[in-house]
Amino acid sequence: MKTALAEAARGRYLTYTNPMVGAVIVKENRIIGLGHHLGFGYEHAEINAFNNMAKQEIVRGATMFVTLEPCSHFGKTPPCCREIVRKGVKEIYIAQTDPNPLVAGRGINYLKKHGIAVHIGVAETAARKLNEFYNFFYKNSRPFVTLKSAQTLDGRISLASFQRTYLTDDTVFEDVQKLRADYQAILVGSGTVLADDPLLTVRTRKLKYPPVRIVLDRRGRLTNEYKITNEEAPTWIFTENEKIAERFANRSVKVFFKTEWTLRDIMQYLTRSGIQSLLIEGGAKIQDAFLEASLIQQFVVYQTDQLAGGNSLAAFKSERDAQKLINLKMIARKQVGNALKISLRR
Amino acid sequence: MKTALAEAARGRYLTYTNPMVGAVIVKENRIIGLGHHLGFGYEHAEINAFNNMAKQEIVRGATMFVTLEPCSHFGKTPPCCREIVRKGVKEIYIAQTDPNPLVAGRGINYLKKHGIAVHIGVAETAARKLNEFYNFFYKNSRPFVTLKSAQTLDGRISLASFQRTYLTDDTVFEDVQKLRADYQAILVGSGTVLADDPLLTVRTRKLKYPPVRIVLDRRGRLTNEYKITNEEAPTWIFTENEKIAERFANRSVKVFFKTEWTLRDIMQYLTRSGIQSLLIEGGAKIQDAFLEASLIQQFVVYQTDQLAGGNSLAAFKSERDAQKLINLKMIARKQVGNALKISLRR
Repeated sequence: MKTALAEAARGRYLTYTNPMVGAVIVKENRIIGLGHHLGFGYEHAEINAFNNMAKQEIVRGATMFVTLEPCSHFGKTPPCCREIVRKGVKEIYIAQTDPNPLVAGRGINYLKKHGIAVHIGVAETAARKLNEFYNFFYKNSRPFVTLKSAQTLDGRISLASFQRTYLTDDTVFEDVQKLRADYQAILVGSGTVLADDPLLTVRTRKLKYPPVRIVLDRRGRLTNEYKITNEEAPTWIFTENEKIAERFANRSVKVFFKTEWTLRDIMQYLTRSGIQSLLIEGGAKIQDAFLEASLIQQFVVYQTDQLAGGNSLAAFKSERDAQKLINLKMIARKQVGNALKISLRR
Repeated sequence: MKTALAEAARGRYLTYTNPMVGAVIVKENRIIGLGHHLGFGYEHAEINAFNNMAKQEIVRGATMFVTLEPCSHFGKTPPCCREIVRKGVKEIYIAQTDPNPLVAGRGINYLKKHGIAVHIGVAETAARKLNEFYNFFYKNSRPFVTLKSAQTLDGRISLASFQRTYLTDDTVFEDVQKLRADYQAILVGSGTVLADDPLLTVRTRKLKYPPVRIVLDRRGRLTNEYKITNEEAPTWIFTENEKIAERFANRSVKVFFKTEWTLRDIMQYLTRSGIQSLLIEGGAKIQDAFLEASLIQQFVVYQTDQLAGGNSLAAFKSERDAQKLINLKMIARKQVGNALKISLRR
């Protein structure tokens, strides 16, 4: 199963909304086939493992190790279960069941019904970790949310509202690029766009499915002069201003209008759109809204050895009364460039 | 000199406004005398080294190692230089000159004039570190200021103004007690007293000279109902309210009235009173005033894995526009109880 997990990880940055999956075929204690899911719309790991064998006929009576329950439905490709049965696999080890309701046990039932010995749960923790956002999404029916913040020791993100303050260095910039590549969407408020004019793209790696750039722009202040509206990645604008749609000739920009958008509405919309993971990158008010709504699963802070004080802009800022402390669990601390990178979970 | 430094350190918590000093007498490669400054008003290290020898006559022709320039003036005790010459010491190694203007080179001149070979600067860095606050005070004519803050990851010290929020645990409490013991004074604003009613004493160690508790109480809101006005340590109140003096029958409370106190005034007053080191423990406005005035030499933060957000109270808070970032130098990071203790310097 370790080999299957390593094989699965090769699909990183490629599978998009699909999970990373690896499969290994073993016969007489020898690996005779290896495969992973190559990317959204392409063959699944099990099929690739079959295809990667020199001689097809030797599969009969073999054992398969797969990191995720094989699918039983027609999606972009035919169901893997049918092929596993057809090829004559005798026994199968599955690391974790598929939380996707389209599969969710049906794959396992199909395999059992066709006389295959099925074992579930080998290296389950590692397999779940591999597709953490995918698992979270199907279990909780909402995207996994990470909030990233670069801040001073006193928790400030900028010397003043609507002013870009450079706190972190190039090494942190590169690290943030890597972080972004793991998410399907990046969300900011329009204030951040107006103040910083960010691209919010992944510049260090060419991605087939770059994260969707989401801007919450209640008043409709965005124009196509801002970099975020370029064609390098899709841009979704959630607004309460009916008129802004016509401003964007660029087809990669989509405008979603509603007379009143709540955070819950937006999260529901993202869930229906299949966005499994979301990275929040400011500003202060939006970050506080996510904090208040208990929607933050992970907090990644790049903390510099600086103080700002006075009326400088706090990382989580609003007029609401803070009722309680949110306790997080420290996962990792590491010096990255000029900042201490602290990763915490709910 | 290493032995002399170790000997000096034995005077910790005892010497008050005097420096820690150690002296070693060596003859024919053998230590024949050892001494340290035992405490404010008591004999100096050099005299103790003489006194600790079995036979007084063998000093003649010996070499002395001392961590600080021997004094040349009559203070609480007669000058050490005279005694060193009288005893017949032939050669002397001095780690650092004394920045105190009462000595400042005069001791060395006296010794040289009397035919003793004088060497200066052996292990100077370690010696300077030993009496860091003392050295800073005489060099800069103001107390060394450390600001201590217990805060959440987003830089908040309390859920709301005038509300005590417990962020840190007992282990941090003990660590703060140890920190306090190193300072001659602890300063807070009256808001902190009204909200938290702190004792601001060192409870883990019996100190002969406990830190003076200083309260900045412009409006004169303190009464003798607050613990800080008890007799466990001296309390100094700086106020612009002429009438509050009569409230305090307790003789350990001193009230300093002026129609307008600026931070510079207060610092000057503390300097004239010989306060060499000052620990600031809140609140938000006073901390920001010290930050703005560039008076913070060291920042010690106990950072918990929590978020507060909203309008909770920031560690450094005022209406002033934050003009620039204050860059600090990280000295140490260490997990202490439920907090990451980060020590930084200017």
